[in-house]
Amino acid sequence: MSVAPSFQANAHPVDPFGIIAPQLAALDAFMKAQAAQFEPEIRDMAGYCLEASGKRLRPALVFFSGWEFGGRVDESLVRAAAVVEMVHLATLVHDDIMDRAELRRGRLTASRKFGPDAAVLLGDALFSQALHIASQFPTAEVCRLVSASTRRVCSGEIMQTLRRRDFNVTLADYRRMIDLKTAELFRTSCYLGAMLSHQTSGFADAADKFGHHLGIAYQIYDDLVDFVGEEKNIGKTLGTDLATGKLTLPLMLLLDRIPVDERARLIADMREGHSPGLATSQQRMHQLGIGAAVVQSINDELSIALESILPFSSAPAAPLLKELASLLSRQVASLPTSVVSPA
Amino acid sequence: MSVAPSFQANAHPVDPFGIIAPQLAALDAFMKAQAAQFEPEIRDMAGYCLEASGKRLRPALVFFSGWEFGGRVDESLVRAAAVVEMVHLATLVHDDIMDRAELRRGRLTASRKFGPDAAVLLGDALFSQALHIASQFPTAEVCRLVSASTRRVCSGEIMQTLRRRDFNVTLADYRRMIDLKTAELFRTSCYLGAMLSHQTSGFADAADKFGHHLGIAYQIYDDLVDFVGEEKNIGKTLGTDLATGKLTLPLMLLLDRIPVDERARLIADMREGHSPGLATSQQRMHQLGIGAAVVQSINDELSIALESILPFSSAPAAPLLKELASLLSRQVASLPTSVVSPA
Repeated sequence: MSVAPSFQANAHPVDPFGIIAPQLAALDAFMKAQAAQFEPEIRDMAGYCLEASGKRLRPALVFFSGWEFGGRVDESLVRAAAVVEMVHLATLVHDDIMDRAELRRGRLTASRKFGPDAAVLLGDALFSQALHIASQFPTAEVCRLVSASTRRVCSGEIMQTLRRRDFNVTLADYRRMIDLKTAELFRTSCYLGAMLSHQTSGFADAADKFGHHLGIAYQIYDDLVDFVGEEKNIGKTLGTDLATGKLTLPLMLLLDRIPVDERARLIADMREGHSPGLATSQQRMHQLGIGAAVVQSINDELSIALESILPFSSAPAAPLLKELASLLSRQVASLPTSVVSPA
Repeated sequence: MSVAPSFQANAHPVDPFGIIAPQLAALDAFMKAQAAQFEPEIRDMAGYCLEASGKRLRPALVFFSGWEFGGRVDESLVRAAAVVEMVHLATLVHDDIMDRAELRRGRLTASRKFGPDAAVLLGDALFSQALHIASQFPTAEVCRLVSASTRRVCSGEIMQTLRRRDFNVTLADYRRMIDLKTAELFRTSCYLGAMLSHQTSGFADAADKFGHHLGIAYQIYDDLVDFVGEEKNIGKTLGTDLATGKLTLPLMLLLDRIPVDERARLIADMREGHSPGLATSQQRMHQLGIGAAVVQSINDELSIALESILPFSSAPAAPLLKELASLLSRQVASLPTSVVSPA
């Protein structure tokens, strides 16, 4: 049985061919050792958060963008990967407080395990330690990039939090939110990888742009998956965005394309936290060609991402970044045709 | 009517003689300009937090420790002062979420004004921006010091949060908590001031030690004031620590010195969030000499602080730091004699 490479689930699905397996293993070891860097009183709590091994998507961007022929494990790339991953983990700890989430990656969230008050502070400690690792580079540039990036990620999250159940969110607002909350750290990961490995002049900026558009594509894909749900349990995730009143691209397009009275009913339902009939929604999405339109948006972003590294096709990192974009593209193509194919 | 110089209330009470008035004015201008550094979407919220001008205690430590003959306004000291103040403001934003506080400095807390979810993220953005300012120094050293300090401050806060209503907290635990949550940023402020102004060799370490012990003294004083309350409204603050079950030195000594049955009653009352009779508590404190013992602890710390800078009496910063310790000492001496004089 063949398993299609995937951006989701399992260990290191971003590296289906094991190209950066030694780098990801070095990262795991580095992250594990980080727990000891926290004060003894919070070491176990910090360790709990660091253990939760996710998709390692941002570290993979660092390693791929910083790839050199020979593929040696570069200590500075491992450190940069740890920085972006720890920033990401810190945002997850705080996100889970806001979402009142019970579980993440099959384990209790920090907020549920240690209480929301401790989780606020624990997230802060993770942020601080991420910046502390960043400050161990000889120049302050990594700190400068990562601190600004972190601030922008938080700004995006604040926008999203404040605009929940706000049905006046425009496509430009949505774009700006995902630019900040997701694409920002993607692009910084790519830039850091390219910069620290001293790639060809101009490649770092190209990788930055690649990361930016890959990040937007990824977030739209993530929002689509959340909306159309998983194949086996299609209703499970549909409720999530509707219940929290989070306006994402599929939902915005749906609201935009249905008749006025249907729109009013759907908004009223969402305001009260009711999910509309799932089968109906999916059918409407298909009838109105929304899944296909969302897929088109994702592919448009992937095209811009790929275009940006086109002039650097001889850079060792280029084919790996290209493969990463293809991986997401294949993932998108494997979504249920009933949802994403044109009506 | 003369107003005694004070660590509390009014603008810049830490500088009653106006020695660092130009520096504090430059800091105010710098902080005000910082709002524009945040993303447009959160600029007003960040500005709201930055406007809340507090005692500027940590910036004063930077300026005093970095004082040079002539007293010019050094841009790097202003920047360092802004970093420690912004870290402090970020911790306050998060503290107020945990304490469910309504007001701070006479205005709604960020948590009340923008909601606790947004306040979590806003605090994160303030932390990030503090580190971003730190990263604008030519070397990564300021970032390195401040990120580690921030992590330790958070660790102290976590300890305190997790040990609320834990009546097994020992004096060593209390000491460790205030070391981390308060003394840490005091000592970093002093170290940064001395380091950035290139004072005499060895002075930065001495200033660090001074700041550490001044910070402990200040926190014990703050806990004493919170316990004995203000002269005019002595009951107002007594309830605070009791209600949140926060064990501070005065309370620990009281619990330690009262008879077993009285202790059991007091603990039961606190567990249920009842304040014991105030008059009784104060009388007991006086009878048992607790106020006097706490004052002794504060003065002991101030002595160690002063001792640490004794070898540097010719350093321009030394008399200013000495004056700052005297200021706290006078403040302590002005507490109601019914509370702090020996029984």
